[in-house]
Amino acid sequence: MAVKVNEYYSLIQNNYLFVEIARRVDEYQKENPDANLIKMGIGDVTRPLAKSVVEAFKRAVDELGDADTFRGYGPEQGYDFLIEDVIENDYKPLGVELKNSEVFISDGAKCDTGNFQELFSKDNIIAVTDPVYPVYVDSNVMAGRSGKMGEDGFYENIVYLPATSENDFVPSLPSEKVDIIYLCYPNNPTGTTLTKEQLKEWVDYAHKNDALILFDAAYESFIKTPGIPHSIFEIEGAKDVAVEFRSYSKVAGFTGTRCAYCVVPEEVYVKDANGNKVQLNPLWNRRQSTKFNGVSYPVQRAAQAIYTPEGKKEIQENLDYYVKNAQVIRESLEKMGLKVYGGVDSPYIWFKTPNIDSWSFFDILLKEAHVVSTPGAGFGPSGEGYLRLTAFNTYENTVEAMDRISKLEF
Amino acid sequence: MAVKVNEYYSLIQNNYLFVEIARRVDEYQKENPDANLIKMGIGDVTRPLAKSVVEAFKRAVDELGDADTFRGYGPEQGYDFLIEDVIENDYKPLGVELKNSEVFISDGAKCDTGNFQELFSKDNIIAVTDPVYPVYVDSNVMAGRSGKMGEDGFYENIVYLPATSENDFVPSLPSEKVDIIYLCYPNNPTGTTLTKEQLKEWVDYAHKNDALILFDAAYESFIKTPGIPHSIFEIEGAKDVAVEFRSYSKVAGFTGTRCAYCVVPEEVYVKDANGNKVQLNPLWNRRQSTKFNGVSYPVQRAAQAIYTPEGKKEIQENLDYYVKNAQVIRESLEKMGLKVYGGVDSPYIWFKTPNIDSWSFFDILLKEAHVVSTPGAGFGPSGEGYLRLTAFNTYENTVEAMDRISKLEF
Repeated sequence: MAVKVNEYYSLIQNNYLFVEIARRVDEYQKENPDANLIKMGIGDVTRPLAKSVVEAFKRAVDELGDADTFRGYGPEQGYDFLIEDVIENDYKPLGVELKNSEVFISDGAKCDTGNFQELFSKDNIIAVTDPVYPVYVDSNVMAGRSGKMGEDGFYENIVYLPATSENDFVPSLPSEKVDIIYLCYPNNPTGTTLTKEQLKEWVDYAHKNDALILFDAAYESFIKTPGIPHSIFEIEGAKDVAVEFRSYSKVAGFTGTRCAYCVVPEEVYVKDANGNKVQLNPLWNRRQSTKFNGVSYPVQRAAQAIYTPEGKKEIQENLDYYVKNAQVIRESLEKMGLKVYGGVDSPYIWFKTPNIDSWSFFDILLKEAHVVSTPGAGFGPSGEGYLRLTAFNTYENTVEAMDRISKLEF
Repeated sequence: MAVKVNEYYSLIQNNYLFVEIARRVDEYQKENPDANLIKMGIGDVTRPLAKSVVEAFKRAVDELGDADTFRGYGPEQGYDFLIEDVIENDYKPLGVELKNSEVFISDGAKCDTGNFQELFSKDNIIAVTDPVYPVYVDSNVMAGRSGKMGEDGFYENIVYLPATSENDFVPSLPSEKVDIIYLCYPNNPTGTTLTKEQLKEWVDYAHKNDALILFDAAYESFIKTPGIPHSIFEIEGAKDVAVEFRSYSKVAGFTGTRCAYCVVPEEVYVKDANGNKVQLNPLWNRRQSTKFNGVSYPVQRAAQAIYTPEGKKEIQENLDYYVKNAQVIRESLEKMGLKVYGGVDSPYIWFKTPNIDSWSFFDILLKEAHVVSTPGAGFGPSGEGYLRLTAFNTYENTVEAMDRISKLEF
């Protein structure tokens, strides 16, 4: 006898994508210490925190340094001051009404989307779009909801819904029965969006098939095109069948500060083994109360600052900055004659490699242009033949990177 | 068909203990808005963050507010600057050598002890001392490693090791075979400790039985008595069979700031279904890389400040303050003729109620003395007939609370 490992961990085939990229980059940088690498791979921001965020952050730290205003454990679900600002600013303008108890503040959308599957039994069928943010798949593989990965790069028992140039990056509804569907719009990695009509088809599918949609809206702040939904709850009936994840990482440069939230409407029910309805909201509350202890108080105050008039203005300036970068990337790639997607309502630009596989083209960009990208194949089999660039570097670096790439011969 | 819930969540019988206490307290406070409640229930600190912590915290926030020093995503495992200080200050003086890759910074020991069980298959036998910090049990129940809770308050399939006045709070080694043992010393909730010799019996047991010890040392900074181990790794052979959890919550008042770490030595192996050895450290690394995104950068800088000479002095003053409170509580309870345990190398005082059950005595203290305690029964069946008080309130409140309790008739 001995301690028995979670066997499902061994099903994971590769390193977590961004860990593997970091490994290749580190190795190259070590061998070429003088190479001036420009990182446009991982979706990590570069603009500093907004002034009003910094001020609120420090004010809250001072509160913790004073016995009269010190705070210890906060609510696992987050402070009402932040939850109320979320509801008032992120949802009310969309016509979406929420209760405080439906919003859960967390330390990241990665944590939330990774942990949420815990609420479900092992024998649910998971569907993901392909390519896809790896956390949705990996967290389900680790929980035993897949079989092995085949030679085709697909895990058994997971339903993959391809999104490629062939279907204009609008994945088809599943032809088989699925239970839980991960959707991310604006999409990571393809940078594409769905219209309200297209998203409504998913909500209708969920209603018809008793399915649940886990909707990742981490990039909604980049939406500029009118009519593109910022939240799945803008779609009629979505509150019965969807959970939404959002993050301050991209909208406010919080990738290193860590704050996010998820919305679990009271209307969402799942079923127990006897077919009885079980409300989802209290289950997530239970999970968070048992295994999480809330987000750092000063971080929640920092996040709150983005909802002030000054904060809104400041973060919009940062967003505009990245949008300009996205435009530079799009236009440069198009000039090279490449097929380019995304980058309009999204910080991600997705493009077809010039008849080279993703990882090889990643290596070419790394070694010949000293630009770090993300290979499309890292996001799933349908990402093969594509590459992702992000708009999160500085404007100067973005221009420099595109100049270097433009000079490559391929 | 429908989305199928994780059935194991329904096995949890009660609200998370501290949520239930908060509910009762809120209800009482609402009905009696003028009652001046003194909270000595949840183990939450009241002293403000140390000056050097506040300064380092704010300096790091300023770094994030400047484009030249901005940082985005950090390592999921934590920054080396903090890991190296942990190794140098928390372990080297104990004669324990660690590699950077063996230390994982996190946002709380509750998160770590709650999440760690994910690495193991469902069919491991879990052992806990009784009474016990509820997170160890609840997180395993939610993962399916228990049966139902019986009328006796014990979950089926979990091995409970009683620690009561009868065995002087030194639990016996399990008589049946167990795989994973949760130990917490200085103990929460009893405030008692183990000597090196007593702890060595557990390490020897783990070696003999191929078991793993998950050792929660969240309260080690309160140890004053020479010879009491601060880390399980002070015990010969422990690095092969133990993982250790620590937290900045109590030592530096980080309950609302959120920072902790766990140590997973490279020597620890578990087994796969074929009996092959699987190294534990990379599994935890995989878990954290997939479902966690690191601790807020300013929080890690804040934690680092406690290792400076000034920081060390400041946090010691706070610890001494709480130790003085613990002494007040001990002495008052003893004067009342109650049997009192803990509170010497621990911020927790555990005492026998005067022939009343835990929750009833909790209610008496709440309603008649306006003091919030924690009922021993909330920590498990062997906690029935005991109550826990914490030394974390102010000195003035602690004196006042003990004065009020002393005047009660029971």
